[in-house]
This record gives sequence, C-alpha cells and structure tokens, in this order.
Amino acid sequence: MLIVMQKDATPQQVENVVARVRSQGLSVHLSQGAERVVIGAIGDDRSVSKDQFMLLEGVDRVLPILRPYKLASREFSDTDTQVKIGEREVGGNAVVLIAGPCSVESRGQILEIAHAVREAGAHALRGGAYKPRTSPYSFQGLGAEGLELLAEARAATGLPIVTEVLATEQVQQVSQAADVLQIGARNMQNFALLHAIGETRKPALLKRGMSATVEELLMAAEYILSHGNRQVILCERGIRTFETATRNTTDINAVPVLKSLTHLPVLLDPSHSTGLWQFVTPVARAGIAAGADGLIIEVHPHPEEALSDGSQSLKPERFAELVRQVRAVAEAVGRTVAPPLGQPLPQERDNGRRPAF
Amino acid sequence: MLIVMQKDATPQQVENVVARVRSQGLSVHLSQGAERVVIGAIGDDRSVSKDQFMLLEGVDRVLPILRPYKLASREFSDTDTQVKIGEREVGGNAVVLIAGPCSVESRGQILEIAHAVREAGAHALRGGAYKPRTSPYSFQGLGAEGLELLAEARAATGLPIVTEVLATEQVQQVSQAADVLQIGARNMQNFALLHAIGETRKPALLKRGMSATVEELLMAAEYILSHGNRQVILCERGIRTFETATRNTTDINAVPVLKSLTHLPVLLDPSHSTGLWQFVTPVARAGIAAGADGLIIEVHPHPEEALSDGSQSLKPERFAELVRQVRAVAEAVGRTVAPPLGQPLPQERDNGRRPAF
Amino acid sequence: MLIVMQKDATPQQVENVVARVRSQGLSVHLSQGAERVVIGAIGDDRSVSKDQFMLLEGVDRVLPILRPYKLASREFSDTDTQVKIGEREVGGNAVVLIAGPCSVESRGQILEIAHAVREAGAHALRGGAYKPRTSPYSFQGLGAEGLELLAEARAATGLPIVTEVLATEQVQQVSQAADVLQIGARNMQNFALLHAIGETRKPALLKRGMSATVEELLMAAEYILSHGNRQVILCERGIRTFETATRNTTDINAVPVLKSLTHLPVLLDPSHSTGLWQFVTPVARAGIAAGADGLIIEVHPHPEEALSDGSQSLKPERFAELVRQVRAVAEAVGRTVAPPLGQPLPQERDNGRRPAF
Amino acid sequence: MLIVMQKDATPQQVENVVARVRSQGLSVHLSQGAERVVIGAIGDDRSVSKDQFMLLEGVDRVLPILRPYKLASREFSDTDTQVKIGEREVGGNAVVLIAGPCSVESRGQILEIAHAVREAGAHALRGGAYKPRTSPYSFQGLGAEGLELLAEARAATGLPIVTEVLATEQVQQVSQAADVLQIGARNMQNFALLHAIGETRKPALLKRGMSATVEELLMAAEYILSHGNRQVILCERGIRTFETATRNTTDINAVPVLKSLTHLPVLLDPSHSTGLWQFVTPVARAGIAAGADGLIIEVHPHPEEALSDGSQSLKPERFAELVRQVRAVAEAVGRTVAPPLGQPLPQERDNGRRPAF
Repeated sequence: MLIVMQKDATPQQVENVVARVRSQGLSVHLSQGAERVVIGAIGDDRSVSKDQFMLLEGVDRVLPILRPYKLASREFSDTDTQVKIGEREVGGNAVVLIAGPCSVESRGQILEIAHAVREAGAHALRGGAYKPRTSPYSFQGLGAEGLELLAEARAATGLPIVTEVLATEQVQQVSQAADVLQIGARNMQNFALLHAIGETRKPALLKRGMSATVEELLMAAEYILSHGNRQVILCERGIRTFETATRNTTDINAVPVLKSLTHLPVLLDPSHSTGLWQFVTPVARAGIAAGADGLIIEVHPHPEEALSDGSQSLKPERFAELVRQVRAVAEAVGRTVAPPLGQPLPQERDNGRRPAF
Repeated sequence: MLIVMQKDATPQQVENVVARVRSQGLSVHLSQGAERVVIGAIGDDRSVSKDQFMLLEGVDRVLPILRPYKLASREFSDTDTQVKIGEREVGGNAVVLIAGPCSVESRGQILEIAHAVREAGAHALRGGAYKPRTSPYSFQGLGAEGLELLAEARAATGLPIVTEVLATEQVQQVSQAADVLQIGARNMQNFALLHAIGETRKPALLKRGMSATVEELLMAAEYILSHGNRQVILCERGIRTFETATRNTTDINAVPVLKSLTHLPVLLDPSHSTGLWQFVTPVARAGIAAGADGLIIEVHPHPEEALSDGSQSLKPERFAELVRQVRAVAEAVGRTVAPPLGQPLPQERDNGRRPAF
Repeated sequence: MLIVMQKDATPQQVENVVARVRSQGLSVHLSQGAERVVIGAIGDDRSVSKDQFMLLEGVDRVLPILRPYKLASREFSDTDTQVKIGEREVGGNAVVLIAGPCSVESRGQILEIAHAVREAGAHALRGGAYKPRTSPYSFQGLGAEGLELLAEARAATGLPIVTEVLATEQVQQVSQAADVLQIGARNMQNFALLHAIGETRKPALLKRGMSATVEELLMAAEYILSHGNRQVILCERGIRTFETATRNTTDINAVPVLKSLTHLPVLLDPSHSTGLWQFVTPVARAGIAAGADGLIIEVHPHPEEALSDGSQSLKPERFAELVRQVRAVAEAVGRTVAPPLGQPLPQERDNGRRPAF
Repeated sequence: MLIVMQKDATPQQVENVVARVRSQGLSVHLSQGAERVVIGAIGDDRSVSKDQFMLLEGVDRVLPILRPYKLASREFSDTDTQVKIGEREVGGNAVVLIAGPCSVESRGQILEIAHAVREAGAHALRGGAYKPRTSPYSFQGLGAEGLELLAEARAATGLPIVTEVLATEQVQQVSQAADVLQIGARNMQNFALLHAIGETRKPALLKRGMSATVEELLMAAEYILSHGNRQVILCERGIRTFETATRNTTDINAVPVLKSLTHLPVLLDPSHSTGLWQFVTPVARAGIAAGADGLIIEVHPHPEEALSDGSQSLKPERFAELVRQVRAVAEAVGRTVAPPLGQPLPQERDNGRRPAF
C-alpha cells in the first residue's frame, strides 16, 4: 500500500508511520514529493488493516496497490478454470446453458420442464427447493420434497441439477441432490455459508449480490477458494440502480471485466438481470456476445401460473428459440454452444481461441 | 391490486383476467377508461403473485395497492412499540445510546471500552464476537471466547449486550450471552436467520441492507414479527450509492419515513453510515434531529490499533462529547437522552409528544 | 391516472377529489374496494399535475396510467423512424457506425482519424469542437476552429459530421458544420438547448444522462419532437452506479427496453459506457446483439497523447477489428452493417425483419 | 500523481513513463516495491491528463494525489467564506433561511408568499421564473413576467431574490432581477452557464447534480471561482439512489464532508431532497444539526393548487413551525438563526465557533 502524508506532516509523524509499517513485517520506501511525502509499504499486506494507517497523525490517504484477492486472480492462474457441470464443462470454448423454473412446484411441473429444456439443448436443470422470498407470505419452496423431485428429474433426463442452498445447515442435504450448489445474490456475503461450501468439493455457482462490486464478488469467491473448493462459477445477475424500467440493471461490462480479472468461468442470468421475459433473449445474446461462458435461464411452461418469478420466465418454445439465437451469436464470436447431452463432443472442442476483450 | 389492461385489450382478455382474480378469492371492480379498462382486485392480496397477472394476455401493468407488510405497519398498531434493552426502553421519548467496539479483541479492550462508554452515558454495549468480513484474510472475530468476554463486561458494568448473530446455528449460543440479537446489513435478507430469530423471544436489532429499500427492510422485519417475536428494532446504517467520499450514504430521509410507516423503534448507526470518525458526531446529531429513537456508535480507545473498522471508531472522550451534543439536540426536539444506567427514570418519562414529521 | 384514497377517507373527501378531477376536464370512474376507494381520472392527463391530487385530504397515492411521453412512443408510430446520417439511415436493418476522436485536437489529427475510420467502414465522423470538461483546468476544445477542421475532414472523406452542441447560442454555428447535432449526457435535461434543437431540422443525437431513467430520456426526446424536429436518435452511454471497475455501467437492458417503447433509433456508445478501451469491443458486440441500431466509438491514433478520453479510445487498427467482429454479430442476429460510404446499398436493404425482443 | 507499474513491467517501460512525466514539466521519484515499481510524478498536475499515463505500456494504475480543485479547497482559504444575500451573510454562525414557491405563478401568489415567509423569519425569497421541467407539457414558468413579479415582491417586502437561471443568454436579464443566481441540479455541469456566471459578480447558489459526487460539485464551483466570481454557495438537494420511498435521498453526510473540504457556505434543500412535505421539517432539523449554514425551502399557500412541486411545499404556517424548530436545533449546536430582516444583528454575531465535525 501507499500512504500519502498530509501537506504539513512533520518528520516525527512520518517516522511514526514508517515504524508502524515495519512493525507489520513490511518494508518501507520513502518518496518525497514537492508537497508531500509518500510512504510505500512493501510486501504482501492483504491481511494488514489499512484503517490503522489512515488514523495515524499526519496521514492523508492510504492507497492499496495489491488486489485484495489472490486465488481468484488471473495472476494466480494463467489458464482458464473449467468447472464440470455433469458431462459438460463451463469455462471452455463451448457455452453452457442452464435452464429451469424459479421454484420446483410439483412433480409434474419439474418433469415437464426438465424434458422440455433438455429437448431444447440445455445442459443442466435449475430449480429452487429452498426459496429466499422478500415476503414471509410468499411461497417458500417445497424444501426436502423439492430436492427429491429434482433428483427424480435428473434420473429421468440425465440433466445435472443446479439448486440453491440458503443456510449452512442445508449444505449437506442439498449436496446430496445437487450437482452444483447455487449461492443466491442475497447470500453472496453470507460468509458462514461461503465457508461451509468452501469445505465441500461440489461446484459452486456464486451469484453477484445486487449491490456488490466486481471486487466484492471476487472476494466472496476467494472465501470459497481459500477453504479448498476450487470449483467456483461466477454469475452476473443484474445490479440495483435507480432505473425502474427493469427489475435490475444487467451490468454487461462485468462480463469482460471479470474475464480479465479472474480465471473463473462467468455466467449471465438474464432472467433476473432484466426481470421481464420480453428482454431475456436479447440480453442473453448480449451476454454471449460480451464473452460469457454460459447462461442460466428461467423457464416455465405456464408462467402465468408460476408460484414465483413468472414474469421473467420463458415458455419452453421461447427458450428453444433463445438457444437457436444464442448459438448463432456464439459462433459469430468464435465459440460454440456445447452439444446437447448424450451427443459426443466435437474432436477439438477447445482451440483456446476466445474473443479478445 | 389494480390491473391496467392494454389499450387494445379484447373483452375476452378482460374476462379472462376477471376470472383469474375471482379464482384467487378476490372480488372484482371493473373501471372503463377512455383508453383502457382497469380491473380492481378487491381483498387481501398479499399472498397472491402479482406476476401471474402481468403475464395474462392484454394486461399492461399491475399496480399493488396494499403495502406488502402488515404486522410492521402503523395501520397494525397505533402506538409506538417500545423494546427493552436491559433497564431502558427504546421507542419512547428518551433516546437510547448503544456504544462499543466493532469487534471484541481482548479482555482488556472490551472491559476498558465498557467502563468508558458507561461512564459517558451509554445504555448498552455493542461488540462483535462473530464478524462478517469482506476478506477471508481479515480478522474474523473471537467467536465463543468473544461472547464470554461480553458476558464478563456486562457483569462488570451492568450494560446489556448487543451482538451480531451470523448464522442460524449460532442463534442459541449468542442468545445466552446477548440481550439484543443484531442482524447485520449483509444478512438483512438471510431469511433462514430471520426465521430463527423470529422464533426466539430476544429483542432483535435489524440493520438495513446496504441496497435494501425501506419497504424491503420492513418486509425483513415482518419475517421476524410473523414468527412471533414482536421485539424488533430497525436500524438505518447507510446505503450504497455512487458517492465515494464516505463509505456509505446516510439515508437520513429513512428516519422520518420509517417513523411514519411503522410503529417499531428506529436507530441510526452513524459509524457505518459515514465510515469516517470525523463525520460521526454531526451525523449522529442529524439522526436525533430527524427523529431517531437512538444511536449505535463504534468506540475504541485506540482506533489506530483496532482489528476492524478503526477509521470509523470514536475515542471514548470523543464519544462523551457526542453524548453531550446529542443531548442538546434531543432536548431541542422535545426529547431527552435516557438517564445513565443506575439513575432513576424521571417521573413522567414519556409524555407521548414527539416531533411532528 | 388512478387516485387511491386512504383507508379511512370520508365521503366528503372522495367527493372533493372527484370535483377536482372534473375541474381538470377529465371524467371520473369510482371503484369501491374492500378497504379503499379508487378514483379513475379518465382522459389525457399528461399536462395535469399529479401533485395536486396527492395533497388533497384523504388521498393515499396517485398512480399514473398514461406514459408521460406521446410523440416518442410506439403507440404514436407503428413503424420505426429512420434518421439520415449523410448517405446512410439509422433505424433500419443495417447497423450504422460513427467513429472518431473525443476532441478535435489539430488538423493533422482529425484528418488522419477521418481517413482511418472511413477506411475501416465507419459511416460518420464524431469529434468534439466544444467540450464539456469536469475540470476548468482541462482542455476545453478548439471551438470554432474545431468546427472548421471537421468541415475539412468531411470534404476530404465524405463522412458526415456528428458533433456536440453545448449551449443554445452555439446551435446555429454548429448546425453549419454538423450533419448531426449531439446533445451530451450532461445536457440531456438542458431544456433550453433541447428546445432550440427542436426548432432546427437537423438530426439530433440525444445521449442519456448519467442518472436519467429510460423514461426521462424519452421525455427529453419529447422536448425535441414536440418542437417539430422529428429526427431524433437516442444513445445509451452508460449510467452511474456504485460500481467503480468501469467508468460507467452499460445499461444493456435499455437497448431492448427502448426499442419496445419507442420508434426512434437507438445507438450504444461503448467507449463512454465502459471508459476503458479493453472493454469497448466486447460491449460493442453486446450492444448489437441486444438490438442496437448502431454504435458510436472513440478512435484515436495515439490514445496515450489524446487531450481527452485517451483511456477509452481505440487505435484505428483495433477499431477495424471491432467492425469485423460487429459485422459477424449483426449477421448472427439477422442484420447487416451498412456498406461503407461510396458502396451501393444492397437491393433490398431492409426486409423489416428484426430480432424479436 | 502516482503511477503504479505492472508486476512484469520492463525497465524500458519504466523509463518511458519517466520520460513522459518529465516532458510534462513534472519531476520524478522512483519507488521499487517487492512486486512493482511506483513512479511518483511531482508537481502540480491538475492540468495533466491522467489517461495519457494509463495507456503507456507497462502501467497498471494511475493514482491522483492532489485534489482536482484548488480555489474551492480549504487549503486555499483558511477562513470560511461568507456570501451576502441582501442584508444577511451565509457562511457565518447565523443560519440563513430562503423560502418561497417552486414557481412564480401570479402577482397575488408571489406577494402572498413573500409576506408570509418574511413574517415567519425568512431572509430571502426563492421562486422560479424560468423552470426546468421534465415534461414539455408541464408549466414552464412565467419567464420575464415572473422576474418582474419577483422584483415587485422584493420592493414590497425587502426580501432579496434567489431565482434560477437556465441558460447563458438569460444571465444578464436574470441578474437584473435577482440578488442570487441559482444554478439548478440539472445544470450543475452546464459548463457554458457556469462560465457565464463566473464572469458576473452576483452571488451564485450552486445545487448539486442528482448524480454528482461531492468532488464534482466542488469542480463545478471551481468553474465559477476560476472565472473570478468568488461568491459561491453550495447546496445539497438530494441525490438519486435506488430508494423510491422519497423523491431523492438526502445525502446528509455531504454537509459535514463539504464543510471539511471547502471554505464555501453549504445549504440544504430538504424540499427537493425528500420530495414530500411531511418529511421536510425533520430533514431540515437534521441539516442544521449536521452543520448546514442555511436552508432553502419551498412554501406555497395552497400546495394542492401549485403548478409545480406542490407535494413538497409547506404551507406558510408549517414553515413558521419549521423556523421555530430549526431555531431550537441551531441553538443546540451553538449557532443561531439570523434575525428577521429589519432587526439588528446581535453585537457579536459570529464568534467563529462552529460545531466540530
């Protein structure tokens, strides 16, 4: 970190800061400007509180130099991490599609959707058994029964299951049914949960919090990674802004920004990031055009009867059309959509080429 | 709710919506405008998905009429709820002050601060044993040991304890040490945790999420209330905006807005809402001037050595000055600061008068 | 508009509101709910102050039904408006590309860039003669001399000129040099300027303000349209949010949202919406994938010497690569990039097809 | 500024940056860290583009050290600037109150309000003759006639006039009628207008843009100051956030933050910062408690008939009550409310004391 002293800082104050830097095991480089002294603290200061220095007499500002995450950074790993979701891997050249209802509502519903999205080309089934709902009066999910229905849908279709875990005490139970553990936006900084998932060896799909910066998303990933679980998939799902025309604002910039900062795969969830089914397909296309490694899409055969998120759910036939359009865009940017389950992977499925960003 | 049909909706589409409204147990009032039909759905529709209606053919917009919370609303309770924090009650005419360090760091530290803030006039001691930290490399709190030290500080000073609970599995343990269970901003929509705390009978201090609307804060309170715990204290602690001069933006409007919408007591946390100790006192004064029922303030004897949040912590002597200034402002708006612990309450401690807003 | 009365509104209060509605030339439809009365005010109420009604005794809320803009809305015009930029039209099937430096800096610079972007396939040249700069100490543009240099660049390359007008008194002067008058983000609600441009017959390129909603952008367009100038092009250029990894947040949702609400053409400016050249190309691809009718891109041969906005400027060869990538994406979504200037338009250049959104 | 090189920057790249720094007339201090080189550019770099450096090969980040404003900063002037508004000065110990309608609507209206607010203790009359309105269909102000009515109100009551100027060509005309030129939030970065007002010698009341940072507000003030007009009053009027319960979010932090950064006086406009009359008085109290030097308040005798901003206007009797409450709060924080016009100033009207922040 760099510590910028105030214009009128005394030599004694500078010396005091220097001593403090050294006491943290860091070495010091002093730089005397025209108006101010700048003190460079040299070494890995990720665990050192910057606040401490801000409060020392004579200090004007403290500027961090190192990014606060390490394992998630591109500097840690040159090659893109690929995470298995059933038969397919996300993070390679082939785009992966996850689709399904917001909530598991009934056996009939989840089986109908599972067959439909598999038919349309999805590579995994999403569906919530435990649902975080803003209102205590809204449908809260089927819980354990929902997990069983998801397992049944997997058995029937072969689709791996992506489902949300809401609390540490659910991790074990959900891990039995799920192929990928989803951490919802509201739990992105539920550090107890991140810790618990970091101790499993299940792939984790970490959604960006609705007011989390890209850096905070990477710090949340770092929690999981630093507890030993290296299979982390990031997901942009829209952020909260002043705009009310859509439920959230898709931060499309975050896609290439994340790809430049981290080796982890990056998905887009255009269902939540728009909140309105009419805009899901164009924003899905945009996500792939911007370099996302896959999409997670809400699909419901009868959105007007859905117990949650109906207004952002696509009907199966519209999802099939989305897949067609996304495939065309993926090819336009030098990628493919991963083949449907059961079909062989192309010989050379990843030539390492990727759109420059 | 009101369902506004599109300009060119057909009679069949209107009929279809009407049938759906009736099937939800609601009755219907039709209103034919110059350009559009508006369908009023009459009855308590809090558990009815608005999305369902948005998706019916011919529907343009769905406008909710009822507020989505009930138990938290002023319509539910005419009189202000007062919640006990040890000897004192928050939500009456007398302003309550909670103070202490961000984290419990050591026996010496917490005892020193506890005595100092009690001396200065605080009515409760705050301090984190379990700490949510953005970075996995930062100090994570002393955990169970921290709870014991808080209990010791209570025994030594008589100050009731306010401390954060991070996960459902901690609720029981923390409840033994704490007089008030704090739910942090990052957990405001951790519904499993809200549910668990709703089943205790401990006072809960619910902090607003950094991107939560006032309505979402009240919905989070509704989770706790609807599970039977009626002792909920709300806390504005700053929201996330584009402004970077301070750590958060104090939404001072939220104080009178909340007081107009709910009967629950409302605190302000100027330490987090500014993030810089220099601005804590003026914003504390502003909070009381705006009608807050109390304050929660970070105090540390050596902020430059604090393991967390040093830059927003007041030294004890500055906290004592804050208490003096806040007392003057409280009196200027027709209130008082509650007497220090041990001192008798004034004869008529609440005349029910309160600044109009 | 709909006027929702309070739960306990008296019949006298309802009558009072009804009388006020009628006095505004609107008719009334009364709807009696279980808990409340709702009064529908029927007729075109765009010029009626909603505030007036909010303040009447017994009123709880006022809900607008009509969108506040008229001429800009899809309901006003079924067919997409196409606006001429020199030889090309924006708003049809063919995507239009505008490129050039942030500021005109010198004769050599603008001529070099003009030739380079024309070579790469741009259809118009952008470049600021009058520059809005946050700091009074920054380069403020060459002014009248810059306009002359732009005219010279047009003469040399045939590229039509897009340049910003900052103040009403510049409108006439800039109109002589420019083919398209640009209204910058900071002036989106400079109503005097919108009015003045509304009285010209020059195409206007209206950039979204950095904290303007989509609705406010359309209201700003309505100012220009309602003064008689029907040639308005809208431009998403990023909004201000809490995220600091990029200069602005590209609101990609706004592209399909605007296309659904208005018949006016919609451009994306990925240079400003990202602020970092590394992310301009992927976000440009995303814009076209989402349905934008064109792009406006900052190009500079020596960005590290640019007097403004260097960090978001592409070098000419990178812009040429952007054009290639954008062409592939445009074709993937059923569109084309308009042919370079001088080349004939394809026989059937617009079949009216357009990606569904 | 400090230029942080990438981890793997070559000596040649470092040399190249050093040369560029020197070519800008700055001197260089090199700092070799464990992982990176940091180059300090020493001297006044306010007019040097930081972008230039970001783009040089091997550069990771550029960190500004100097604040970008100079004349507005506390470092430029130790003593608080006091700006005359008629007989009173804003920026001293005594709080100044400006009140009046959003728009001048008629002779009767403005005279009635002027007398009422003077009676209640206001020191200046606000009122718009030229109105910036989001919709072209809304009332746009009386223009020149409004200015005449304001002049008449001044003659009748002695109240100095604060009124908005929307465009450079209005500056001269408005200056004749106005004692203080108001620059509205939407024009905070209308640099042509700032420049023009900077060349007058009229006090300027500069409102913060709805998405402007505190630093950008100070940069806008710097435009006026740097053109020679040193009488600038800043005004916090609420910023745009995700919260919809109020029209804007009052950034109360900005009050003490501005007072710490600048010597210019700071007002609060709780009418716009809340948008709802019910919350104007508590937020006005908060503003004074936080250290604001005055308030600007919308008052209308019949808000339900106001042609603009009715819902945030106080009736005169409520304004009188606001003045009483604000006086109590001002005294609680060691200040006063300036005496009503015509009354003598107290002997020692400013002892320089001011609440610490």
